Amino acid sequence: MPKQIVKVAVNGYGVIGKRVVDAVMKQEDMKLVGVGDVATDWRVKMAVRKGLPIYASIPDRAEDMRKAGIEVAGTLDDLLKEVDVVIDCTPAKIGAKNKELYAKAGVKAVFQGGEKHEVAGVSFVAQCNYHESYGKQFTRVVSCNTTALCRVLMAIHRNFGVKKARVVIVRRAVDVWESGRTGIMNTVVPEMGVSHHAPDVKTVLHDIDIVSMAAKGSHNLFHMHFAIVETKTKATEDDIVQALSEEPRVVLVRGADGVDGLHAIFEIGRDTGRPRGDIYEIPVWEDGVMMIGDEVYLMWATPNESNVIPENVDAIRSLTQLEDDWRKSVELTDKALGVVKSLY
Amino acid sequence: MPKQIVKVAVNGYGVIGKRVVDAVMKQEDMKLVGVGDVATDWRVKMAVRKGLPIYASIPDRAEDMRKAGIEVAGTLDDLLKEVDVVIDCTPAKIGAKNKELYAKAGVKAVFQGGEKHEVAGVSFVAQCNYHESYGKQFTRVVSCNTTALCRVLMAIHRNFGVKKARVVIVRRAVDVWESGRTGIMNTVVPEMGVSHHAPDVKTVLHDIDIVSMAAKGSHNLFHMHFAIVETKTKATEDDIVQALSEEPRVVLVRGADGVDGLHAIFEIGRDTGRPRGDIYEIPVWEDGVMMIGDEVYLMWATPNESNVIPENVDAIRSLTQLEDDWRKSVELTDKALGVVKSLY
Amino acid sequence: MPKQIVKVAVNGYGVIGKRVVDAVMKQEDMKLVGVGDVATDWRVKMAVRKGLPIYASIPDRAEDMRKAGIEVAGTLDDLLKEVDVVIDCTPAKIGAKNKELYAKAGVKAVFQGGEKHEVAGVSFVAQCNYHESYGKQFTRVVSCNTTALCRVLMAIHRNFGVKKARVVIVRRAVDVWESGRTGIMNTVVPEMGVSHHAPDVKTVLHDIDIVSMAAKGSHNLFHMHFAIVETKTKATEDDIVQALSEEPRVVLVRGADGVDGLHAIFEIGRDTGRPRGDIYEIPVWEDGVMMIGDEVYLMWATPNESNVIPENVDAIRSLTQLEDDWRKSVELTDKALGVVKSLY
Amino acid sequence: MPKQIVKVAVNGYGVIGKRVVDAVMKQEDMKLVGVGDVATDWRVKMAVRKGLPIYASIPDRAEDMRKAGIEVAGTLDDLLKEVDVVIDCTPAKIGAKNKELYAKAGVKAVFQGGEKHEVAGVSFVAQCNYHESYGKQFTRVVSCNTTALCRVLMAIHRNFGVKKARVVIVRRAVDVWESGRTGIMNTVVPEMGVSHHAPDVKTVLHDIDIVSMAAKGSHNLFHMHFAIVETKTKATEDDIVQALSEEPRVVLVRGADGVDGLHAIFEIGRDTGRPRGDIYEIPVWEDGVMMIGDEVYLMWATPNESNVIPENVDAIRSLTQLEDDWRKSVELTDKALGVVKSLY
Repeated sequence: MPKQIVKVAVNGYGVIGKRVVDAVMKQEDMKLVGVGDVATDWRVKMAVRKGLPIYASIPDRAEDMRKAGIEVAGTLDDLLKEVDVVIDCTPAKIGAKNKELYAKAGVKAVFQGGEKHEVAGVSFVAQCNYHESYGKQFTRVVSCNTTALCRVLMAIHRNFGVKKARVVIVRRAVDVWESGRTGIMNTVVPEMGVSHHAPDVKTVLHDIDIVSMAAKGSHNLFHMHFAIVETKTKATEDDIVQALSEEPRVVLVRGADGVDGLHAIFEIGRDTGRPRGDIYEIPVWEDGVMMIGDEVYLMWATPNESNVIPENVDAIRSLTQLEDDWRKSVELTDKALGVVKSLY
Repeated sequence: MPKQIVKVAVNGYGVIGKRVVDAVMKQEDMKLVGVGDVATDWRVKMAVRKGLPIYASIPDRAEDMRKAGIEVAGTLDDLLKEVDVVIDCTPAKIGAKNKELYAKAGVKAVFQGGEKHEVAGVSFVAQCNYHESYGKQFTRVVSCNTTALCRVLMAIHRNFGVKKARVVIVRRAVDVWESGRTGIMNTVVPEMGVSHHAPDVKTVLHDIDIVSMAAKGSHNLFHMHFAIVETKTKATEDDIVQALSEEPRVVLVRGADGVDGLHAIFEIGRDTGRPRGDIYEIPVWEDGVMMIGDEVYLMWATPNESNVIPENVDAIRSLTQLEDDWRKSVELTDKALGVVKSLY
Repeated sequence: MPKQIVKVAVNGYGVIGKRVVDAVMKQEDMKLVGVGDVATDWRVKMAVRKGLPIYASIPDRAEDMRKAGIEVAGTLDDLLKEVDVVIDCTPAKIGAKNKELYAKAGVKAVFQGGEKHEVAGVSFVAQCNYHESYGKQFTRVVSCNTTALCRVLMAIHRNFGVKKARVVIVRRAVDVWESGRTGIMNTVVPEMGVSHHAPDVKTVLHDIDIVSMAAKGSHNLFHMHFAIVETKTKATEDDIVQALSEEPRVVLVRGADGVDGLHAIFEIGRDTGRPRGDIYEIPVWEDGVMMIGDEVYLMWATPNESNVIPENVDAIRSLTQLEDDWRKSVELTDKALGVVKSLY
Repeated sequence: MPKQIVKVAVNGYGVIGKRVVDAVMKQEDMKLVGVGDVATDWRVKMAVRKGLPIYASIPDRAEDMRKAGIEVAGTLDDLLKEVDVVIDCTPAKIGAKNKELYAKAGVKAVFQGGEKHEVAGVSFVAQCNYHESYGKQFTRVVSCNTTALCRVLMAIHRNFGVKKARVVIVRRAVDVWESGRTGIMNTVVPEMGVSHHAPDVKTVLHDIDIVSMAAKGSHNLFHMHFAIVETKTKATEDDIVQALSEEPRVVLVRGADGVDGLHAIFEIGRDTGRPRGDIYEIPVWEDGVMMIGDEVYLMWATPNESNVIPENVDAIRSLTQLEDDWRKSVELTDKALGVVKSLY
């Protein structure tokens, strides 16, 4: 039994928020107190059905929510009074506006990757820089893309040093729930020039030379990453595979096993039996790893809905000083969530 | 505690088979003895990881499977000796070939909708004709499309009589796992003329006048059904909604609640917390129900991977005479699987 | 050589407008005077490159357009002074607002199907009700979906009488040019209840009993139509095929010839050698025609970008009394555009 | 008027073949004698409708073709007797088998990128190595992807030298005509490891250091290329843009002009008024060009159906010594096809 129980609020019950709620509820050293949101549709009704106490993130929305049959326990202010830490899972840029509320209420807060690094002042990937957020009031879990890049590059950096990384990201265009309105069809939509992902990696892995390009692809689940990484010290393909196999929250899959694309990863996720079929790990294609000269070529899937969920849990432990050793926090989180070193 | 435990084999660990395995394991009156398959890829490896005893459905495949690291407990013949009933979940047309094996082994067998009615001689949808399979050696659970049609039409037929039903089906093109090879892209692919679904409904609801047209749509999850149903006795929109709300394994969703398409149904499924996010019910749009004259217009989603799973469980009870009342079997199955009357 | 040359403006250079421009320029009895638009992107630049005189549809936009390097010949008011008739191809609902401008300028106007019937007071499909717009100031070419329905139903109605038509439409989700922003992905998005298409058909074919349902499919080219039509007098499949083969702007294609879906129709369109690969005709699957009792089942593709283009040309002749016989107008238009009775 | 007219056969009337036919017919120094194919579907019927003489590429197919109503002028052997050069546009690997036939008939032959370099012994991109095929019996026009890479890299190589190029290709999954059978859906399907495109570039640009990765995206038109190119001598972004703007068959487009993805390129193609909306040029995003250190980051669309068409025409001139200056051949071809230096 843990010595201390941290009381947690989740503000925003969307793609990330609902998963953070479930993950927090599985931790023995945390207690979920309530959930803030503003919507009145099936998504919030499902939260109610799960028995989650719902608070109006914007006080004026409470009446509409009650009219829609949602029992509202109070406002965000009421919720913040009851908790030690809030996980802000509101849409991009809203977190920045909420920061003042959190500061005023004297609660610690974890922001998501939709916010700028400056909002929290420190960014977070558990296995890379857990200590930088330790005891702080605010931190930011970086985006799914950045988290994936940090984990995979860390496996190489930790063992051989990364001299330079060149990355191309083919993003899922929109989330599933919004696929009826703002999707892309039969196209690829590039970001002009160099993308923001590389600079974002540097907020966590400060001394890595990295550049990235990105585009939206015509699919709505999982990002696809291609990376070309120059190592500082010599490594073979086997060395790289070994490093990946040892890195937390990175798993190996094989085309030779019939894992022929993002769709197969998604099917595997559903077969794990986890809620929503979520994949918390970064699946890297083992038979896609290729070493040419001092450069390793590799490709992986980034499960955009779920890979940052464990980071949010660890970020709570780092901010609240529940645990000072990143490996112990990761171990606790991964055990609770069922994170594995091999998906099949 | 049930008086009798039926021993079950599942032959074919694909989209349907793996779900039937999980469902059977949740029933108190059934015991899963083993799983037959022939593949050597991640899918079967995942079955091994779950601790399922694997048998080679084709004896000659055993060696390849062992070479791929799969522990093979024996051949299909070995497995059949240990069970009372086999659920044949092999690809379409293979079941017909397996029938002789099952007959020879003296086991009862449930076939899937990929087989013709004649293979089993009787077809099955629990809430429509449970008794027709009662005590038989063989039965056939009809396809996901036919099952959905039977459930929804039964709600209307039971209460008002169906005079004539005209149906258009926009099918998901392929299953997720095969979406990297045999999909369709940016198109609709029609079946020429009248589709096979309507005659298939008549193998279950023998006296309904029904015609259907069908096409593949450019999506890989869930079929979309449009139906225009003439009733025998007068009904209002409210009457139809009431009938649907009372029918087992049919649920109501609302566009007004943000359920704007198949993608939303899929997201809801994942939020239920069920394995793979499966939906066993047929979600009908309540605000899509419209009565004009003596015709009701309605539209629903058919969760193609999972809606026949409860039928397979009930079919076992019907064949083996575990239960003679269809409502009791449906109740047992639904309780074990968590089937609900409202998804959110 | 025609006795009279009608001077034409096209207001709105989008999916429909740019095609109407090309079509009008091919008519011997019409002269394109200019094009109104408000955009500054590649689309208008392409119009400039073609040598089309561009006018600012909203006077305030003229400056921005000039800054973007577009030579602006004047405002919409200037353009209206020079023409007899304007084809309003602005986005839905904007035409209704423009009506007053056109009335004030004393020009005749053709609106598109995005406007309500009431805006023009009369709706138009050349082969169905050409005479109703004859000499009027305003008319409305109905939407691509309604135009397709009218043409195909007219073939049956003309010969056998339509007693009742039941239709399901699987629409393309968005146009190609906007496929990077507002598409749908891996889903079907239904319209709740009965769709507006059936009532819209009645603005042209006033005495047909018709009902329709509709949904968006995950593709961006061509609508797919399924129709179940009860005829008043007896007809065989051959009779229906014969009627379709005789109807203007309807063509037959065959699944047996490898025309297996909307994508094949699109490829055929490109192979015709017409500008943009446009298909002006409604391709009906001949081997999809099936007669059961007194109902004919049929399915066709609706080339949403281009099938109303000939109607716009005919509507000009009807309004301006260039031609009083619909068959002669259709013949002139079809000859100029290369409309055929068989695509391959 | 040209001094000499080369007689040309096209063997295979598919995506490439039908476009080569049209292109050859537009050249003043070439005469299309006939087309070989084996199919009986709408595609060949359309060739007949265009008045093209059809020959059975496989003698045994002649009867089936005649039964399908296709007038067959003879067999491939008959056709080869009448021509100086054959463009082999048969499916991948079939060209290699046809080589012997061509050798025996004593005709020159152009193969496509689906064949290995070794089949012809020399590979071809007009602006890169026209002279290498000059007077030879065989050459191979490289694939659409390789052709695009060669053209863009040549612009840089010609001016600043390419030290190393790292490329990621997101391919269209299948061609439009086969989009009803073998597509991919809602996924990205990677090629394991390093792709074949880079070595293929070296068959044309022999001394460039280049590596590539590739995947199929869920779209069916145009490949998307991302390239990171180290230059030998210093260049600014403006220098690179200038070099691209001067390079034949490369054009600049701008996100700022609303060219936001592959779909916009496709719409532009259709607006050019060219047959099938074909784009022969490689559209590079001007505002996507970014220079960081000595590396330029750039992205472009590869119009996979049509960008190799001009190369096939030039390859004929090179093999048959119609023209010994590559720039003159390119100029002739581009004038005939309407190739431009700016699409809008």
